[in-house]
Amino acid sequence: MSELNRCQVEFQPVGKRVPVSKGVTILEAARQAGIELASSCGGEGSCGQCLVVVLSGEVSSPIADEKYMVGAHDLERGYRLACTTQVLGSLKVHLPPGTLISGQRLQLESSLGGIDPDPFVRAYPLHLPPPHLEDLRADLTRLEDALRSQHAIAELKAGRAAIASLPGSLRQNNWRGQAFVRQGEIVAFRPSSDTPLGFAVDLGTTKIAAALIELESGSCLGSGGRPNPQTSYGEDVISRLGFAVRSPEGGQVLAGKVRETLDELLGDLVRQAGAAREAVAEACIVGNSAMIHLLLQLPVRQLAIAPYVAASNSAQDLPAAELGLRMAPGASVHIPPAIGGFVGSDHVAMILASEMDRRETICLGIDIGTNTEISLRLPGEERMTAVSCASGPAFEGAHIRDGMRAASGAIERVRLGQNGPQLTTIENQPAVGLCGSGILDAVAELYRTGCLNAGGRFQSDRAGVRSGELGLEYVLAPSGSSGSGRDIVITQHDVNEILLAKGAIHAGLVILLESQGVPLEAVEEVIVAGAFGTFISIPNSVAMGLFPRLPNARYRQVGNAAALGARWVLISRAARQTALEIAHRTDYLELTTYPKFNRQFALGMRFPERRQP
Amino acid sequence: MSELNRCQVEFQPVGKRVPVSKGVTILEAARQAGIELASSCGGEGSCGQCLVVVLSGEVSSPIADEKYMVGAHDLERGYRLACTTQVLGSLKVHLPPGTLISGQRLQLESSLGGIDPDPFVRAYPLHLPPPHLEDLRADLTRLEDALRSQHAIAELKAGRAAIASLPGSLRQNNWRGQAFVRQGEIVAFRPSSDTPLGFAVDLGTTKIAAALIELESGSCLGSGGRPNPQTSYGEDVISRLGFAVRSPEGGQVLAGKVRETLDELLGDLVRQAGAAREAVAEACIVGNSAMIHLLLQLPVRQLAIAPYVAASNSAQDLPAAELGLRMAPGASVHIPPAIGGFVGSDHVAMILASEMDRRETICLGIDIGTNTEISLRLPGEERMTAVSCASGPAFEGAHIRDGMRAASGAIERVRLGQNGPQLTTIENQPAVGLCGSGILDAVAELYRTGCLNAGGRFQSDRAGVRSGELGLEYVLAPSGSSGSGRDIVITQHDVNEILLAKGAIHAGLVILLESQGVPLEAVEEVIVAGAFGTFISIPNSVAMGLFPRLPNARYRQVGNAAALGARWVLISRAARQTALEIAHRTDYLELTTYPKFNRQFALGMRFPERRQP
Repeated sequence: MSELNRCQVEFQPVGKRVPVSKGVTILEAARQAGIELASSCGGEGSCGQCLVVVLSGEVSSPIADEKYMVGAHDLERGYRLACTTQVLGSLKVHLPPGTLISGQRLQLESSLGGIDPDPFVRAYPLHLPPPHLEDLRADLTRLEDALRSQHAIAELKAGRAAIASLPGSLRQNNWRGQAFVRQGEIVAFRPSSDTPLGFAVDLGTTKIAAALIELESGSCLGSGGRPNPQTSYGEDVISRLGFAVRSPEGGQVLAGKVRETLDELLGDLVRQAGAAREAVAEACIVGNSAMIHLLLQLPVRQLAIAPYVAASNSAQDLPAAELGLRMAPGASVHIPPAIGGFVGSDHVAMILASEMDRRETICLGIDIGTNTEISLRLPGEERMTAVSCASGPAFEGAHIRDGMRAASGAIERVRLGQNGPQLTTIENQPAVGLCGSGILDAVAELYRTGCLNAGGRFQSDRAGVRSGELGLEYVLAPSGSSGSGRDIVITQHDVNEILLAKGAIHAGLVILLESQGVPLEAVEEVIVAGAFGTFISIPNSVAMGLFPRLPNARYRQVGNAAALGARWVLISRAARQTALEIAHRTDYLELTTYPKFNRQFALGMRFPERRQP
Repeated sequence: MSELNRCQVEFQPVGKRVPVSKGVTILEAARQAGIELASSCGGEGSCGQCLVVVLSGEVSSPIADEKYMVGAHDLERGYRLACTTQVLGSLKVHLPPGTLISGQRLQLESSLGGIDPDPFVRAYPLHLPPPHLEDLRADLTRLEDALRSQHAIAELKAGRAAIASLPGSLRQNNWRGQAFVRQGEIVAFRPSSDTPLGFAVDLGTTKIAAALIELESGSCLGSGGRPNPQTSYGEDVISRLGFAVRSPEGGQVLAGKVRETLDELLGDLVRQAGAAREAVAEACIVGNSAMIHLLLQLPVRQLAIAPYVAASNSAQDLPAAELGLRMAPGASVHIPPAIGGFVGSDHVAMILASEMDRRETICLGIDIGTNTEISLRLPGEERMTAVSCASGPAFEGAHIRDGMRAASGAIERVRLGQNGPQLTTIENQPAVGLCGSGILDAVAELYRTGCLNAGGRFQSDRAGVRSGELGLEYVLAPSGSSGSGRDIVITQHDVNEILLAKGAIHAGLVILLESQGVPLEAVEEVIVAGAFGTFISIPNSVAMGLFPRLPNARYRQVGNAAALGARWVLISRAARQTALEIAHRTDYLELTTYPKFNRQFALGMRFPERRQP
């Protein structure tokens, strides 16, 4: 093959380059680069999952099917299907999170997306004259004078803890080092080798995801997650609020648990990064309103009963020490604003990082979790609208007999073929349970193959359906082939949990659209966010009625956009401002008091009409 | 007596009126009103203690002696000697604290002096619409919206604790009440019957004086005092800092002790006033630099060793909860700025309340305590200078065998006549010990009568001097006449303690004047502040050399001006600004490194030449 026919394709944000022959598809080029793209149709241009963005370079023109799947608007913005687009020259290609499969998606977690760091905390190198008999200025005055004269910072202040740290840190560093300053507030005096760090947290009802970020570069030094330790006091939002309301010390216990876990997570991250806690200058924590109320130990009685009023939806900055986070002495925690009801700062962060607020399409944003938030954006309109659905923790693997988190051995894909279940597990290990996307696949396939009827009841005459301890169930993996040594099954109860979640999300979505007078077919884009939403099969979600029947290409799986939004707010002053504007521009719609809610909830618990594949 | 010859004299701030005959002296009028004025010469115009200010009304012209004693400058401002000034018409007379004797002086504690309240915290009456399904605003947003629309407050913020209090307080008060707001920061939502209160504290090394103030009127609802509980860890500043430096938890223990006592004092005051802790919206605490460092638990190692550098001398505002003070949820504590070394916010407050910074005289300000601060003001000069003297706790009754605080039965005046000691006790009770002014009188009289020589040694051949357990001593009250059932004596050790204090103050004063090139005789005014300074006999203080030999009339005893200054800073924005300017304008002079310090200290420990009475 001549050199003339060779081109180079660069894939971002995974950062891989591969030389390929002119004429291959981008999907093929990705395979050659060792990147597996989502593609349930096997490259036939019919599933719309392998959506990529061509940032630069020459490619083939879209074929008719692709034009239909992607839409003129997105084609203009460079969106293409990897399977039908040919490489005609050297390319730079962006892979949206939803297009990558699990393993590679994790790499994305260390990417910032399209934002330039411009943090609130800055480091100012300083060399101070030590005190002597002719110069008896207080340590704080000495530092402030140097910041004013050497760095022209006019307005300075310092809290008690930061002041208390100065006599030690100035003398230990021999009066040389750098001051971390946050909008005129002195955060710490640190050795010259330090760089200011940030702690970004997505505080979910079931899971906590956190990252340690270099504030000035935006680099991620490490990320990690933990189960939310409050889960043992109530798995969903309402039962957890109930615990806080019932017992006088309930709120204190819940706040203490989650604060402790956050501090441990931070400890792990700084240890792994070889950094110092004292260099962590700011944190940004997003979460739904209940999680933020419990974290801050705000009263929740009025949030737990109709009409569900928050103590505060406003953005807050508070000393890290007030939340028991051991960071830099003057470090603070920023909580972005919430929207209303349970639609919290996590949803604001999701709208921010998905840039949904800037879309020029009729756009739905769905963040699936124990509580699912959905918002609607209409082009040319200032206001957006958001609802909250109590979808429960089933998609996070809780309340499901063999549910588990997305770890090694979790079933993440299920196909029921003629020879029985075909399972894909994380890291190809023997199956030990089902993570969210596996549960969803399993239920969708059980319905497609008729093992479940439209009402979600197991049909006892179907192969694989058997009578279990608690009623009918379906065996996905018999004990002999499972990694857990016992049968992995889907029970009737599991199906019911999924149907409840599906009903709640369906009701929210239908009422949200109806309240704004938008017919379903008019929706041009559906942004699916959240760890679970990243990994699910859109076609299966549509087939089982979790998501509405819209062309696959209108769905965008954007990954944990709330966690990404928390990072943006942490490192960018502009993003923090945008978050305020998003909260301000978004109206909260209380679903449970909506007259049609119960009916739509019940409708949503049924499966839709089966379509032929 | 005809009505024509009757006039009315009103005495402020004690608020008493009395009808008198035209022609009586103001001193006589005061006696008729039941007010006892200081007057050691018995009304002969020679001691200058009965200084008053004629605010309005007709009085006799000053006689020659009075012109000399008071001075032209002060005569113009209305200052007169009560004993030589005749009432010629109805009068309004102001009594400076130093002119009143003890019992009446306490009433002064409830006076504010010449300042108009203009507090940082304001109360805004509000009536809020309760939440309902069409109005789901968060509690904080609802309150902020009402403050904006009903009171046109533009910029608002709230801390975690204030937000946490809203759901309860809004609902308990049925959405009616008032918001306490401090410069845009929401402090509390309170019932309409409440008024915002303040807590003013003079945190002395030995004693804590506090008052509960109505912020909007400036009225004092009550005042009280406690010994500083840190005393058991070190009686003077240096030994107490030593305790904090030596033990790793020392600082924590000392901070905890004093915070606890402050909170108890506040509890007593609100209980006595029938008020709620939650209505106390702000505190102002003044103290020397060591006391403030220990209160805030700032590191003190660098303050305890040369060159004695503070962690911070800046003004600070911090949440009351951070100091363990249970006040309104969003309450804060203001610490005015310090000057340098140990010259702290208490001295700034003293300069403020005595208005020394505005004097057009060459003026010394002396605040006597366990640490004594002295500052010098020169007319027409921007800068002032301050020094700090380690005078020790002797004048506060500590380290003195029969020393006690100024309580019932304390000897406050001593005269050694031919028939032995003549003692005046507080409330005329049997003597149980000596308070500061009694100790000073006793030592001055022992020297005047030759029982002590110029070096301060007891002379064994004098009547009353006997050999005690620890050397020579003088019996002031034998056990038979004392209220304690044992002899009340002045020991050689007691005298030595006083001489040490006297030496320290003398050295500070001489070096301060010399450093600024001011001869002693040029000093036109000496402001004597502090609880002890209020009660002492100026003639005796001069006779024993504690104060320099200047005419009595140049001395002004202004009471606990530091405590008064704390109140000013609490209730007046202008005063808070002036305090910043005073600290900024005042240079600290480090005494102990001054070459002549030791010599002046030794000189000051001797008594001056005796003068004939």
